[in-house]
Amino acid sequence: MDLPAPQSYSPATFRPLTFHDAVPRFLDGSDTPRAYLERCLATIAAREPQVMAFASLNEAGAREAADASAARYRAGAPLSPIDGMPVGIKDLLETRDMPTQMGCEAWRGNFPKRDNAAVWALRGAGAVVLGKTVTTELGGAHPGPTTNPFDQGRTPGGSSSGSAAAVGTRMVPAAIGTQVGGSIIRPASYCGNFALKPTQGAINRGERQATSMSTHGPHAGSIEDMWLVAIEIARRAGGDPGRLGLFGPATAPPARRPMTLAVMEAEGWRMLDDASRAAFDAIVEGLRAQGVTVLRRADHPLVESFEQALEGVQALTGVITGWENHWGIRNLVANNPDGVSARTKAVLAAAEKQTPDDYRAAILRREEMRRSHEALAPLVDALIAPASPGPAPLWTGDVPGQPQVKRPTGDAVYNTPSSALGAPVVTVPMTAVGGMPMGIQVMGQPHADAAVTAIARWMFETVPFASA
Amino acid sequence: MDLPAPQSYSPATFRPLTFHDAVPRFLDGSDTPRAYLERCLATIAAREPQVMAFASLNEAGAREAADASAARYRAGAPLSPIDGMPVGIKDLLETRDMPTQMGCEAWRGNFPKRDNAAVWALRGAGAVVLGKTVTTELGGAHPGPTTNPFDQGRTPGGSSSGSAAAVGTRMVPAAIGTQVGGSIIRPASYCGNFALKPTQGAINRGERQATSMSTHGPHAGSIEDMWLVAIEIARRAGGDPGRLGLFGPATAPPARRPMTLAVMEAEGWRMLDDASRAAFDAIVEGLRAQGVTVLRRADHPLVESFEQALEGVQALTGVITGWENHWGIRNLVANNPDGVSARTKAVLAAAEKQTPDDYRAAILRREEMRRSHEALAPLVDALIAPASPGPAPLWTGDVPGQPQVKRPTGDAVYNTPSSALGAPVVTVPMTAVGGMPMGIQVMGQPHADAAVTAIARWMFETVPFASA
Repeated sequence: MDLPAPQSYSPATFRPLTFHDAVPRFLDGSDTPRAYLERCLATIAAREPQVMAFASLNEAGAREAADASAARYRAGAPLSPIDGMPVGIKDLLETRDMPTQMGCEAWRGNFPKRDNAAVWALRGAGAVVLGKTVTTELGGAHPGPTTNPFDQGRTPGGSSSGSAAAVGTRMVPAAIGTQVGGSIIRPASYCGNFALKPTQGAINRGERQATSMSTHGPHAGSIEDMWLVAIEIARRAGGDPGRLGLFGPATAPPARRPMTLAVMEAEGWRMLDDASRAAFDAIVEGLRAQGVTVLRRADHPLVESFEQALEGVQALTGVITGWENHWGIRNLVANNPDGVSARTKAVLAAAEKQTPDDYRAAILRREEMRRSHEALAPLVDALIAPASPGPAPLWTGDVPGQPQVKRPTGDAVYNTPSSALGAPVVTVPMTAVGGMPMGIQVMGQPHADAAVTAIARWMFETVPFASA
Repeated sequence: MDLPAPQSYSPATFRPLTFHDAVPRFLDGSDTPRAYLERCLATIAAREPQVMAFASLNEAGAREAADASAARYRAGAPLSPIDGMPVGIKDLLETRDMPTQMGCEAWRGNFPKRDNAAVWALRGAGAVVLGKTVTTELGGAHPGPTTNPFDQGRTPGGSSSGSAAAVGTRMVPAAIGTQVGGSIIRPASYCGNFALKPTQGAINRGERQATSMSTHGPHAGSIEDMWLVAIEIARRAGGDPGRLGLFGPATAPPARRPMTLAVMEAEGWRMLDDASRAAFDAIVEGLRAQGVTVLRRADHPLVESFEQALEGVQALTGVITGWENHWGIRNLVANNPDGVSARTKAVLAAAEKQTPDDYRAAILRREEMRRSHEALAPLVDALIAPASPGPAPLWTGDVPGQPQVKRPTGDAVYNTPSSALGAPVVTVPMTAVGGMPMGIQVMGQPHADAAVTAIARWMFETVPFASA
């Protein structure tokens, strides 16, 4: 296969698709949501054959919704700041007007004609639900067809492959992803997105309540749109059952300079190549040049103790999620033995070796990690880390006759900490490594989603970008 | 309609159907699980036309499972202490061999061919899944056809109407119910069952994770079978995602005498008629005669403070559950406007008036109630109360042209406290009022399921029954 050369992504020159700054033109009549949508459709027509971000599109429904939105702007009465915003929805979430096939043969044709709570909320806010974005099979390890917007020979990341790629390709200004291990933040890192993995439970997952660590979260071309999508969902749909939901202002929090940050090395640090580490270190130096204190693990015993508590978090999240998912996958395989990939069946087999007591021990271990993170609250405003252990790896498919690649959509090692901790993370596209994006993540205490967004915004606006 | 006279239920003379004591005969060959099942089927044939406990039956599948169980006993290798036990499954839970219609026209014919985690676990333990038991519509207020085993003119309670009635009629030794407000403990009280409403999250709810207060729990004719069913599910399926699951021994905890109990009057006390109050007071006097200290609200400021914290709990659980359920019901009504009752639509309309901030306030109020309950931990071994505000009320259907009865399956006022507190409750059939059963409930701290069962067992075995 002849691969096109990387586009040499640079955070300094990449111009993402934004929506919030189009709204004044909708109001003064110099642009319309329908015209905005048509520009998105034109980009999709041009790039989709290569990027393959969408599992399905509802162009007719989207045009109808965009026209209705245009009429509201003409009447001076938009429903919300995201009225008219075209959005992609990860194909794990139910939508009443498109099938929900979860990247899985066994779910082919599944069309429950229901809206997930977040989708329902987006429609209530006037957003234009344009299509379902490709997910890895059931949100797991087995990849879909999507390629990286900046290099067709590389993965877009998973499991929110299509949401991240659609935003990175400027097909839509925002798309909904979900994360259980590393499925929002990693693909956002690989595709040059902003993304929010909210506090566990902060955005209502609707029918998708089966795992204790999954979240919905927006990918977006701008931090303004990222926040607007999150808060507009939460204002209507609230949080998960029993949870308090997302806290924060009605528009993106203004930039806020942190006093003290700490670097989270986690299990990923030893996996970083020299260029990725150099790019991250340059961001740390940039923060220090702005007068921010940046602690590393050797600088404070609480940071070191947190790092030690995190040892094993990658394996732990696998144990927890494997157990939580195994009922559903076993039922699926029982009904349709050929409808699930060998990769997913291997994960199932491992999960079925566990007992409820293994799971119980894992939950208590996770609780210890959370306490160790909580102990950092008075010490640091947030933690920072690479959002992935380097840029997107090469991936052009399994090679017949050879063992399957274990992590074809990349390694979640820098994402499982926030998943296990239930902590909010924003990833910021401010670094390039070898001409490909690598995000910098900012992680806070549970319910500090707005504070984390404010710090991320300040970093993006103030700290020099780094390329290596 | 000519109603038969009440059977004058008395806890002293009623002989429930038990299973644990049949196992030795399975092992020595003097009885078999197949013969046991046939006796259940004979009872069903005789009583089902009047009681209408089942939404569907799988007699062929049950006979096959019972024969397989009999073979295991012949080989001296039963899978568990409940191998061969015929069980009913509330028709809210998915079963791979029977439809799951949830008492709702809109779900008629729904047949997902999947097993709920608890059903899967019961099959793994060798239990014989005999049928789906009638639920009120979607587990809500709108009743199904089931009648009370002891008086056809009265409700069996809801929403686990069929599970409670099937056990009360001796059709099965145990059946699975679910509770969000009062749906396990109230019908168990009305039908003379033992039942466990476990600690929130202690028994894996499988696909039914959408509400923050729902639990699965067993109804049974004996406390031994009740505990066995619960622990055999939990040993295989564990608890809900992120929860530690049910703690306790492999067989029913031995009876344990409490030192100190407190009466929980709650909002139901003022609703009790003289006979019900007299029956409950007789139990309190029986406890005192055995040397147990029984505190009432005037006896200790922490008990009084707990009672005050509970004010409004009935309305609060309605607000919380209404909000949590409204996505699902709205989607259902959107797809099938005539498939949902007016009663359920009225609940939906009220829920849709709420905002995420109303819900958030309700969750925090619930948290205060939980803290107030926690404060009682060092003071009392458990709380006791009537399991319902009197015996089953009369119910023969809505009268055309008159307003619908608001609570046709009885009032959950004595059940919403444990639901809101996430606390384990066992109800004990040791009281009769006017010839009908009324249960006595024992409530403990979260995760004290086994301790509560031990106290309930001691009360049943030691304290004189009361009739009024």
